[in-house]
Amino acid sequence: MTTKPLNDLLNWRYATKKMDPSKAVPQDKVDAIVDAIRMAPTSSGTQPFEVFVVTNPDVLGEIRKVAWDQAQITDGSHLLVFAAWDNYTAERIDHVVALNVSERGDLPMLHAYYDNLKSNYLPRDAEVNYAHAARQAYIALGIALVAAAEQEVDSTPMEGFDPDAVDTILGLKERGLRSVVLMPLGYRDESGDWLAPMGKVRKSRDAIVTEVN
Amino acid sequence: MTTKPLNDLLNWRYATKKMDPSKAVPQDKVDAIVDAIRMAPTSSGTQPFEVFVVTNPDVLGEIRKVAWDQAQITDGSHLLVFAAWDNYTAERIDHVVALNVSERGDLPMLHAYYDNLKSNYLPRDAEVNYAHAARQAYIALGIALVAAAEQEVDSTPMEGFDPDAVDTILGLKERGLRSVVLMPLGYRDESGDWLAPMGKVRKSRDAIVTEVN
Repeated sequence: MTTKPLNDLLNWRYATKKMDPSKAVPQDKVDAIVDAIRMAPTSSGTQPFEVFVVTNPDVLGEIRKVAWDQAQITDGSHLLVFAAWDNYTAERIDHVVALNVSERGDLPMLHAYYDNLKSNYLPRDAEVNYAHAARQAYIALGIALVAAAEQEVDSTPMEGFDPDAVDTILGLKERGLRSVVLMPLGYRDESGDWLAPMGKVRKSRDAIVTEVN
Repeated sequence: MTTKPLNDLLNWRYATKKMDPSKAVPQDKVDAIVDAIRMAPTSSGTQPFEVFVVTNPDVLGEIRKVAWDQAQITDGSHLLVFAAWDNYTAERIDHVVALNVSERGDLPMLHAYYDNLKSNYLPRDAEVNYAHAARQAYIALGIALVAAAEQEVDSTPMEGFDPDAVDTILGLKERGLRSVVLMPLGYRDESGDWLAPMGKVRKSRDAIVTEVN
């Protein structure tokens, strides 16, 4: 595989509307995408989300039903479900501390840092903490979209679904997780995809950038 | 510049703690990073955020004061401020529709799509819409971090600041924007950066991935 510049990857990818159900994404490509998600930076390194890689046809069918019947969910071979922590807890942060200690040594500054984090996060409302965790998942989503393009795998970021229903289907509530965004993986069926021939629409630089110099 | 695989970029980058104030990021590299942000996908293509590229030393100094005195803000040569829409409005969505029409033609389905979007978004609480817009900015943040690494530019995603104070400094409130995350750009000062020699800490694949097959 030739490595392409980021700009080429961002231009190649698009929110694929029609995937070819006869083509499955090979495991090594799925692994590469998942690994990019795992390497994504997150606030204070907490990685406050998990990823479900769904290939079970019955489960995909159930999820499609609560996601406006979007066909990519079952036409793609893999569905990534990003599920954020429903709250920050002492136990979850302690696990992050333990991982840091095992990698970097038992440094006092490390404990001080996460003690301070706990004193900030733990008293906060669960919804505030969940919203923060969800944002971190979106950093990983951005990087996952690049990773998929690098693997020449099509994907589409999908917010149109009933999160509570997906949580129930995957048993997320019991695990302290809430689904935030879906990302089906597959291969575009260009002839069946109305969006494939359309030009990409983006605002001009002037419309979104202000220089303060 | 040689193009590197995403995995190499994710391993090269780190949340730079000490930047060399004597080295400025060249304009073409800043442009490439900003362009990646502009090309980032967002929900329904609304691109509901703006980016402020701050190089003015006085303004950087003011922002540093309300960001826990973090030195990267003034040691880096450029500070990107991601500012999300404080709400979705008919005017903002109409602007997106107009851009789509100019790129893709005056298609009825396009109007139907965004009419439906308006009927969903406009009655919602501003806080809900802002939270949604902020998540989109985080997709772009993830991609910007990759873009910076591709340009061999150091950066650090930064949530530790007083958003209201930054909004006041940059006059964001009047523009219907709220600052969500900062990203200083510069070059690492390895000898002065305690984090530079440390190994990257990430959870194992098993800790964050569940296969449903």
